[in-house]
Amino acid sequence: MDEQILSAALDLFIESGVEGTSIERIAKRAGVGKLTVYRRWSSKEELIAQAVESLRGEAVPDEPADAPLAEQVERLLPRWADAMVRPRFRAMVARIFGSSAHHPELMAAYWENHVVPRRRTAHALLEQAKREGALSADTDVEVLIDMMVGGVLFRLLQPGNPDAAEMRRYLESVYRQAGLPVGNHSSTRPVQD
Amino acid sequence: MDEQILSAALDLFIESGVEGTSIERIAKRAGVGKLTVYRRWSSKEELIAQAVESLRGEAVPDEPADAPLAEQVERLLPRWADAMVRPRFRAMVARIFGSSAHHPELMAAYWENHVVPRRRTAHALLEQAKREGALSADTDVEVLIDMMVGGVLFRLLQPGNPDAAEMRRYLESVYRQAGLPVGNHSSTRPVQD
Repeated sequence: MDEQILSAALDLFIESGVEGTSIERIAKRAGVGKLTVYRRWSSKEELIAQAVESLRGEAVPDEPADAPLAEQVERLLPRWADAMVRPRFRAMVARIFGSSAHHPELMAAYWENHVVPRRRTAHALLEQAKREGALSADTDVEVLIDMMVGGVLFRLLQPGNPDAAEMRRYLESVYRQAGLPVGNHSSTRPVQD
Repeated sequence: MDEQILSAALDLFIESGVEGTSIERIAKRAGVGKLTVYRRWSSKEELIAQAVESLRGEAVPDEPADAPLAEQVERLLPRWADAMVRPRFRAMVARIFGSSAHHPELMAAYWENHVVPRRRTAHALLEQAKREGALSADTDVEVLIDMMVGGVLFRLLQPGNPDAAEMRRYLESVYRQAGLPVGNHSSTRPVQD
């Protein structure tokens, strides 16, 4: 049931943005009553945020944080690359960014419920990389996370549709440019956001 | 005349996105005939792209590329910081990103006509910084530009409204994180995009 509702919410959001999405339309498309939706989510923004997160999680499941870096990167980069070149993923990213000024409640709900916990993990991993000397001691970890995630998302929204192999090379370049080891063994771990 | 048309196009784009903007509505708001607009721009995407560029250029005029870095950074960073925290600028950035999946013609027109030339300048400056040793020799300049610009734009679309002073410190952190000198003298120049 939840799955149908999340899927309907994501479809509507991608097709019509926040303003074209309502609990009523989501319920109708999912074939359930409005009250069923309201019992579970208090606002369309929260529901859309969880729907977005479900596509992200399905494309790239969270990795156990204790696996060695090389293993994690080897598993994660191709998955991210595959996910990111899918038109649906790209359209979803565009919709989220596009909503940020006129519908700040959506970005706020997504940020608080889904991004902040992953950023905390990424922050801890990059701080560890600093302690181990993989990153220089004066690295501003929050800024570095923005540059890595922001750089990749920016690339995704640029004209030209990279294929998965190209996107994978791009992700590797971002990791390298950040100063993180790619394609070799180390005890540090990649950013997961 | 051009100025009124560009201003009307930008207002409409920020209010209603690409789909809510048409040459007809732009002409009406600017108080001119449709043909007057069509004589000058062949599509609404080109017109919106130029309108976007006019706001950018007004907020942060292009600097002479031969001024020393310290001078350029001192002049540019506070201007960028002031511009970026303006709700209108933020809304415009959100609209451009939000259009990239459903209206790729707009991003394509903006990219080709306005971004590519500035990226070429930025590319040359960063290559020079590499030759001079300010950036390491294995820097992937295109990826670094994405990470700098993308990181800043990503920060801009996140929840929370930084003020100009905070945004300026943020921009300085991005420059430093990229490996570029900030707040001291050097012959390299900042990224202008």
